[in-house]
Amino acid sequence: MIPQWIIEKKRDGLPLDAAEIDFFIRGYMDGSIPDYQMAALAMAICIRGMGFGETMLLTGSMLATGTRLKYPGLRAPRIDKHSTGGIGDKISLVLAPLAASCGLAVPMIAGRGLGITGGTLDKLESIPGFRTNLTDKQIVRAAGRCGCCIAGASARLAPADGKLYALRDVTGTVPSVPLIVASILSKKLAAGLDGIVFDVKCGSGAFMQTPREANLLAETLVRIGSLSGLRASALVTDMSQPLGRAVGNAHEVVEAVETLQGRGPADVVELTLALGARMLMAAGAARGEAPARAFLAGKIRSGEAFGKFKAMVRLQGGDENCLDRPEDLIHAALTFPLKAARSGCVARADAGLIGRAALALGAGRNRLGDGIDRSAGIMVVKKTGEQVERGEPLAWLQAGSEKRMEAAKPLAAEAFVISPRRVAAPKLIIGEI
Amino acid sequence: MIPQWIIEKKRDGLPLDAAEIDFFIRGYMDGSIPDYQMAALAMAICIRGMGFGETMLLTGSMLATGTRLKYPGLRAPRIDKHSTGGIGDKISLVLAPLAASCGLAVPMIAGRGLGITGGTLDKLESIPGFRTNLTDKQIVRAAGRCGCCIAGASARLAPADGKLYALRDVTGTVPSVPLIVASILSKKLAAGLDGIVFDVKCGSGAFMQTPREANLLAETLVRIGSLSGLRASALVTDMSQPLGRAVGNAHEVVEAVETLQGRGPADVVELTLALGARMLMAAGAARGEAPARAFLAGKIRSGEAFGKFKAMVRLQGGDENCLDRPEDLIHAALTFPLKAARSGCVARADAGLIGRAALALGAGRNRLGDGIDRSAGIMVVKKTGEQVERGEPLAWLQAGSEKRMEAAKPLAAEAFVISPRRVAAPKLIIGEI
Repeated sequence: MIPQWIIEKKRDGLPLDAAEIDFFIRGYMDGSIPDYQMAALAMAICIRGMGFGETMLLTGSMLATGTRLKYPGLRAPRIDKHSTGGIGDKISLVLAPLAASCGLAVPMIAGRGLGITGGTLDKLESIPGFRTNLTDKQIVRAAGRCGCCIAGASARLAPADGKLYALRDVTGTVPSVPLIVASILSKKLAAGLDGIVFDVKCGSGAFMQTPREANLLAETLVRIGSLSGLRASALVTDMSQPLGRAVGNAHEVVEAVETLQGRGPADVVELTLALGARMLMAAGAARGEAPARAFLAGKIRSGEAFGKFKAMVRLQGGDENCLDRPEDLIHAALTFPLKAARSGCVARADAGLIGRAALALGAGRNRLGDGIDRSAGIMVVKKTGEQVERGEPLAWLQAGSEKRMEAAKPLAAEAFVISPRRVAAPKLIIGEI
Repeated sequence: MIPQWIIEKKRDGLPLDAAEIDFFIRGYMDGSIPDYQMAALAMAICIRGMGFGETMLLTGSMLATGTRLKYPGLRAPRIDKHSTGGIGDKISLVLAPLAASCGLAVPMIAGRGLGITGGTLDKLESIPGFRTNLTDKQIVRAAGRCGCCIAGASARLAPADGKLYALRDVTGTVPSVPLIVASILSKKLAAGLDGIVFDVKCGSGAFMQTPREANLLAETLVRIGSLSGLRASALVTDMSQPLGRAVGNAHEVVEAVETLQGRGPADVVELTLALGARMLMAAGAARGEAPARAFLAGKIRSGEAFGKFKAMVRLQGGDENCLDRPEDLIHAALTFPLKAARSGCVARADAGLIGRAALALGAGRNRLGDGIDRSAGIMVVKKTGEQVERGEPLAWLQAGSEKRMEAAKPLAAEAFVISPRRVAAPKLIIGEI
């Protein structure tokens, strides 16, 4: 087989077969197919697309480049949640310990922030000592002992995904449904899960900007996930404005702790319960959504969920004591109140622009490998549909330097639109599969 | 400017501006943009296309990566011919000395064979001692003294083209009108020409398989060439069957010599005169096609054209004496007559398959850098429209080894279709611009 013939086939819009896909992924991993041939194929896939069959074959080939975790003796069903990424999305930090406190095992493989999208691993590393680079053995052990852990994919879990993702990041080939699905599922299958709930974000702060695109991605994830043997379901949720009020790394840890303590913002609580209920149902641990939600809410009320979070932090080497005063994790030099220029109703608190402002403040990275400032971030005071008086703060920006603060201000200011008329808050859950 | 933003723009089908194209080509040449980003952009261009304006900007940026030849004191107009490549196309070997014998300067920058398409430089290197790697100075001097030379592009003439072509070759991004046009024109403009005639091949043995595609390429070449200051015209010509009867390297030198001696096959003679006439008209050296053709034919009859070829070979270090017995340049170990299985009229002598057979015999290379066997080749005895008796040879195959001969036989056999009914020979010149 000749690599460029396979590239040409996809360039011309033809489907690739199992042998061709496997040859390419194997060759890419053993070095016989160089980055530039993979980049050309990725671009052809990005523009020409892939059918369900091809996407499943690609997922399988990427999975086969590594090992698959096994949990000998573990009775608890292994259920995970995966979000396609958005602004202020700290649900994983809440949901992993919450689901574990309900008896599920949640060996969560998470990622780093890229572009305007935050990353669960970056957020957790705001906690002093917290280690995200667990070995496969440590992940399996944590699932058994604590019930949950949140770690990066080791080099042994679908290594093709790590290599391909780094390449896609710099070649304009990130927003492709088949490549996104194969990337997510190959890692999730490698983690040895029984079931998974996808949270597909939709709006200006997400990869998928329209409900049509988001639905297609959700459907493909559920379909390929199910065909691959996972109990899979999905929610399509709003990302036109940030989720919750905290955007940033340490800032989001604070809000996650507040949610685990029963003091979370309404949308964070609602999405946590909606996704958690689906995790319980995938595990066969609840009969329907209402009892599942009640079960979850009870675990927050009783403090068990927060206790589980502390146990997880301890197990992963983090300082659990600082979680009693998480605000102390934020030590930004500068704070700036973004004030409303007029009175009225917030008609827009644009997630994309707030994400870009947070990136400018130093909370994110432009490229894989860039450093980030975990104390930089934004507290959104007013969200869509809320009333504001002229001069009241719409948001607080925090940064480590004047330069960063100045770069972020115009982006943050542009994010907010105030209307003289009442505007309804957007619906949080747009669709479900 | 961020490379991946430019890639993303083209991926989404948007036009690139001058600054973006120039940034990318400069970056690719200075190493700040790696092969994989260029490969992704090339694939996006291949699928999404480029407008005339973008193609012209790309040509200019590639030209600007090198120098442009100057010919101080040279009065003769500098006119070249460029073919997009086909099977048995040895016209350059005839036309460069023929046009020079008419008083034009022809500093011809030629290429190597790739895939089924032969290369002028490879053919000329069948002549012992012939050097194709002339310096810029040597090219300029040859244009003044001898009137013609045929050489490869030095590293100083549009070096971006050499680097990009090698990448396109292995990333499935060769067949793209804007990339082909920028590649051809950047080199031709660097050679410091006044005018050029394009021979755009069309059919199974060419990049462009349909008249529609070939016409688009011809139009784009003429339009961008003219906008760049060249007197440019084009013919679209048949490549459904090989041009002439000889396919291979030494084989084609033999046929070129025969044509220069007035004994060439009708189609080779006809195309030489048609293209040569346009070269003379571009130079302002003839009033119309009929007198131009008569002028050219006279230079063949008088032996001046062949004399000029010998002078060029001598100037480039080749053994001119062997041109009196060029058949001796072919010393293949094995010869095989491909016989007609039935009597009738040749309905097809497929250029694409004959090209693949020649490649299998060793006359071409699959990848840039592969070696070739200059004595391997095919003599096509029967062409489309000719009558054949059962058992008569359709073609003679020549190779250096049994293995190569066996690989070529089925391809050559498949190339010929014999019909009980009379079939007309295809029209040689399909269109002109």
